[in-house]
Amino acid sequence: MVEKKSIAVIGLGSMGYGIAQSVLRAGHTTYGFDINPDAVARFQAEGGAAGALSDVAGRLDAVMVVVLNAAQTEAVLFGADGVVPRLKPGAVVISCATVAPDFARAMEAACEEKGLNYLDAPISGGSKKAAEGALSIMASGTPDAFAAAQPVLDATAGTVFELGDSAGAGSAMKAVNQLLAGVHIAAMAEALTFGMTQGVTPEKFVEVISKCAGTSWMLENRAPHIVDGDYTPHSSVDIWPKDLGIVLDIAKSAKFGAPLTAAALQQFLAASGSGLGREDDAAVAKVYARNAGLTLPGES
Amino acid sequence: MVEKKSIAVIGLGSMGYGIAQSVLRAGHTTYGFDINPDAVARFQAEGGAAGALSDVAGRLDAVMVVVLNAAQTEAVLFGADGVVPRLKPGAVVISCATVAPDFARAMEAACEEKGLNYLDAPISGGSKKAAEGALSIMASGTPDAFAAAQPVLDATAGTVFELGDSAGAGSAMKAVNQLLAGVHIAAMAEALTFGMTQGVTPEKFVEVISKCAGTSWMLENRAPHIVDGDYTPHSSVDIWPKDLGIVLDIAKSAKFGAPLTAAALQQFLAASGSGLGREDDAAVAKVYARNAGLTLPGES
Repeated sequence: MVEKKSIAVIGLGSMGYGIAQSVLRAGHTTYGFDINPDAVARFQAEGGAAGALSDVAGRLDAVMVVVLNAAQTEAVLFGADGVVPRLKPGAVVISCATVAPDFARAMEAACEEKGLNYLDAPISGGSKKAAEGALSIMASGTPDAFAAAQPVLDATAGTVFELGDSAGAGSAMKAVNQLLAGVHIAAMAEALTFGMTQGVTPEKFVEVISKCAGTSWMLENRAPHIVDGDYTPHSSVDIWPKDLGIVLDIAKSAKFGAPLTAAALQQFLAASGSGLGREDDAAVAKVYARNAGLTLPGES
Repeated sequence: MVEKKSIAVIGLGSMGYGIAQSVLRAGHTTYGFDINPDAVARFQAEGGAAGALSDVAGRLDAVMVVVLNAAQTEAVLFGADGVVPRLKPGAVVISCATVAPDFARAMEAACEEKGLNYLDAPISGGSKKAAEGALSIMASGTPDAFAAAQPVLDATAGTVFELGDSAGAGSAMKAVNQLLAGVHIAAMAEALTFGMTQGVTPEKFVEVISKCAGTSWMLENRAPHIVDGDYTPHSSVDIWPKDLGIVLDIAKSAKFGAPLTAAALQQFLAASGSGLGREDDAAVAKVYARNAGLTLPGES
């Protein structure tokens, strides 16, 4: 039997909603909060607990923050209606957004000052794994933070990478992963459309390259979206100007030149700038196709 | 029982030597030729058949050409001492170098004019798989060319992708694969060294990222070389200015912009230009490390 905890998930987007469902399924009293009241109502209808965050905060054992970036994380924790001042001592803040390692360290220090635990816990795996409770979590924090977060990690993660005993290490690894994931999506789009200019169909591309040295996790996951002409967003184009921007900000601070990351970012910016920001990130292929006069599957 | 054929492998480099061994092991009369007489003598000592190419050419059922590029392929086939004029009708030329699809089509036409079969058959998998007879071969050619090449394909390939009934399709798919493979090696190096600036060790990078969405076949294959500080060339840096150069030549002909490929090529050129050309291609990480003031494992 799982010990029943009171847990809030703040941010019910494509990742946070699935996380909240997984926490609820594990038997905890689970609150879901979002600026979109429809998402909150939908989650309560599925069994989520009701109550204003300001009212229930003092009873929470853990708060998982699943928002878009550092600014939203800081607002949720320390803004005008921030939750941190209302949490009870020993509660844990689990922060999932992709942020700079320095930001994670600052949040940890600010939480510890209030007697709270902080787990730097960026997530990977997409909305499907979030809903299944099978995320990969790149976590770092004190042993106390890990212990306090354990019920939430058990409910949401397939794999927890324990990367160190203070915040920052988790966010550093997440940045490394996002660098590669973003570059690999753009590279897949570049190679798939390049192949089309030489008579290689998208179907044949997936069939052959997924079994060859040129394959990647992202290629196998995203290239089928192009074959199907289906750009329903699992993860949207607009994630990448944000995440690769964070990577390049960190890189700049470290005086680290990242030319492939920079080139990939340009392609996602072109995708976003031309109106594809809300489509699945595989839609970066449309930038290449447009520039080369190619017609992708499903386009007329 | 395999029907015993007479087969020549021209080019006994890291790929060709293993291919010749695999053909020999399958029970065929196998000749190995190279401009390096030591490689030829070594192969004959292992059981390879003796004789000058000009003397034995008329008896050959198949010639597998495993040289570096289009110029060498053309010289071996149609140069001053080229083998094509000496081959018997119905013999098959199996061409493995990474070349432009147009070049493959021209070679096929020139061979067919002489009554010979031609299989456009670029290879993938590295020297270890070549020696094991477990290569991936991206093949296209007439049904007669496939039939004539079958004993050689059986001896050398784990997987044969049959990509079409004329030359060009095999080379197109190989170019697509090389685009991705080259970009992925450079991206791995970029991410690994970026991670080092944030306290992520190369060991931890491999351990975590190989299980996350940022992984690629090349990352899993090459990043351990950096962890081990072992740059013994399985596939050398100098392959990539050549192969990505071929990709960009094809792309330019098709008026196709390939910014990630171009960025990756620059990194391999910097590696080659700074004296790393003969090292394993994972040594492209040394360019990043040098530029960022980092020390890789095994470096003092």
